[in-house]
Parts: sequence; structure tokens; C-alpha cells
Amino acid sequence: MEYKVERLLVNFKTLEEFKKFKEYGIQELSMLDDLEANIIENDSQSPFYGIFYGDKLVARMSLYKRSAKFDQYFDNSRDFLVLWKLEVLPNYQKKGYGRALVEFAKSLNMPIKTNPRVHSQDFWKKMGFSAVSYDLDRDLGENPLIWSPFDVQDKKEIDTQE
Amino acid sequence: MEYKVERLLVNFKTLEEFKKFKEYGIQELSMLDDLEANIIENDSQSPFYGIFYGDKLVARMSLYKRSAKFDQYFDNSRDFLVLWKLEVLPNYQKKGYGRALVEFAKSLNMPIKTNPRVHSQDFWKKMGFSAVSYDLDRDLGENPLIWSPFDVQDKKEIDTQE
Repeated sequence: MEYKVERLLVNFKTLEEFKKFKEYGIQELSMLDDLEANIIENDSQSPFYGIFYGDKLVARMSLYKRSAKFDQYFDNSRDFLVLWKLEVLPNYQKKGYGRALVEFAKSLNMPIKTNPRVHSQDFWKKMGFSAVSYDLDRDLGENPLIWSPFDVQDKKEIDTQE
Repeated sequence: MEYKVERLLVNFKTLEEFKKFKEYGIQELSMLDDLEANIIENDSQSPFYGIFYGDKLVARMSLYKRSAKFDQYFDNSRDFLVLWKLEVLPNYQKKGYGRALVEFAKSLNMPIKTNPRVHSQDFWKKMGFSAVSYDLDRDLGENPLIWSPFDVQDKKEIDTQE
């Protein structure tokens, strides 16, 4: 089945939908504050992408482009994407929504870094992501996984070889 | 009740205990690899602190000192601690183990940053931590909470005032 991935607008409807997701945190509260205070306009672009089932948002992720200068994971030559808050509502899981979102992210043709919940490693492996070599100073409590459309090595391994 | 907080050693027993915790990820797997490959010695110091009930590890956290130069949250003048993977095993919750670990961290008299799971905000509030003003470029998918023994402002608010 084909799903349509849409960039989500910041408005009161979107933020109401977000309340159904587990990973509702400071980011969402801040968007709501900014909207209520007219700091951002209704229907501003958000860093979130989602899939609707009818009128209902059933899956979402945040996808944010970062400059190559912030890269600690690839070869520092290209901008990359950071993916977080990938989540599918309970009744809609195992139907390919998560896969559709990640495939959308991959179609943008940039390296991707994510830091998934620890019990989703199988999913990410199927999606072609691989674990980095853990580096305490860099990774702290994260479990970073990376994917790239280019032939890049894990940056830490490159550093070690030098 | 008084609990004894201990710095955990990296050895096969500790890593076996770690398997009982939810947040078992690349960090733990990497410690196990390094131990098996003799890259680190049995009983090396780890960044983890824990509380034992008899012989059993029932609560843990990771606590890592970072140089002031990496500070994005305080006033950049002091080293600070990053706290992660605070977790109490299910049968031992609501008995003060989590509180004892956080109080230990606070007793080190340095600012602390953490990025807790979203459903633990009440606990952190009780412990005196407060939410930062969310900044997309800095915080991405995190929900950072901070505490300081010094009179410091949220760095983002200082920047805005300047």
C-alpha cells in the first residue's frame, strides 16, 4: 500500500493530534506556546512529517536538516538529516507507516542520523541503518544509528585509522 | 531510608545486571565488547552509579562530567554533569531509589543537564530541575532539563536579552 507523506503545518489541529503520541515533550509545548503568542503563524511549516488516515494523524517523524559543520558521524562534507520522534499510533502499527516515513526521509538523498528507542533495532536494521561505534564523549546516552546514500564510513573508524 | 550509591565497575557481573534495565543499548554492548576483547580491564571504572539491594543492582544512572566548552545550557564558565539512563527496576520503584541517585548527583555541586523520558516530568520537577526554552537547532528531539547549584539563567534567555 502507498501512503502519502505530508509535511505537517503548525496549527491547533496538528498540535491536538500530537497529544496522542507518546513522545510529546518540550518541543510540542514550545510550538503551542509560540502559536498562542502569535510568535509563529497558524499553518507555519514544521519540522514534522506525517501520514493521515482520513482526517486523523496516525504516524509522524521529525526531520531536520543540519549543516555539515555539525556532523560528528559522517565525513563532514555534506549536510545531513537528523530524524527523531518516529512514532506510529498503537492501532496502526505493523502496517508499513513507519517504513513509509523512513523511505521518504531516505528519498531526500542525504545521510541520516537517528537515535531510536532501544527496542526498535530490528526495524532500523531492516531499513538499512547501522549502529555507530559507541564513543562516550560524543554519544553520551544515545544509541545513534546512521544511514547514507553515499559510500561513507563511520567517522570514528576513519579517525582511528588516521 | 538511606541508600548507598556506588560507582559501578565494568565487569561481567555488572553487564549481566544491566540486561535487566530497559535502556540497554549501544553503550552497554560496547562495554561488553571492550571487556571481552580486553580493551578495558575487568573492574574498570564506569560512568555508571547504582544502588544494590543485597547482591542485585536495582537502580542506576550514568553521570558524565563534560568540560565547560561543551556547555550549551548554562553560562559556559564551569564544567557540568550530564545525567542519563536513570532507571529503577519495576519492583523497586516509588521507594526513593531514583531520588537517592539524583541527590547523589546534586551533591557533586556542579550544574546538571538531563534529557528524561517524557512521562517523568513530575519527578524531575520535585527534584528541582526545570525545562529549558526549547531551541530546535540545539535541542532537536530532546527534552532537556537542567539544575544548578549556582544562580544561573537558562542560557537561551541570556542570549535573547543581549
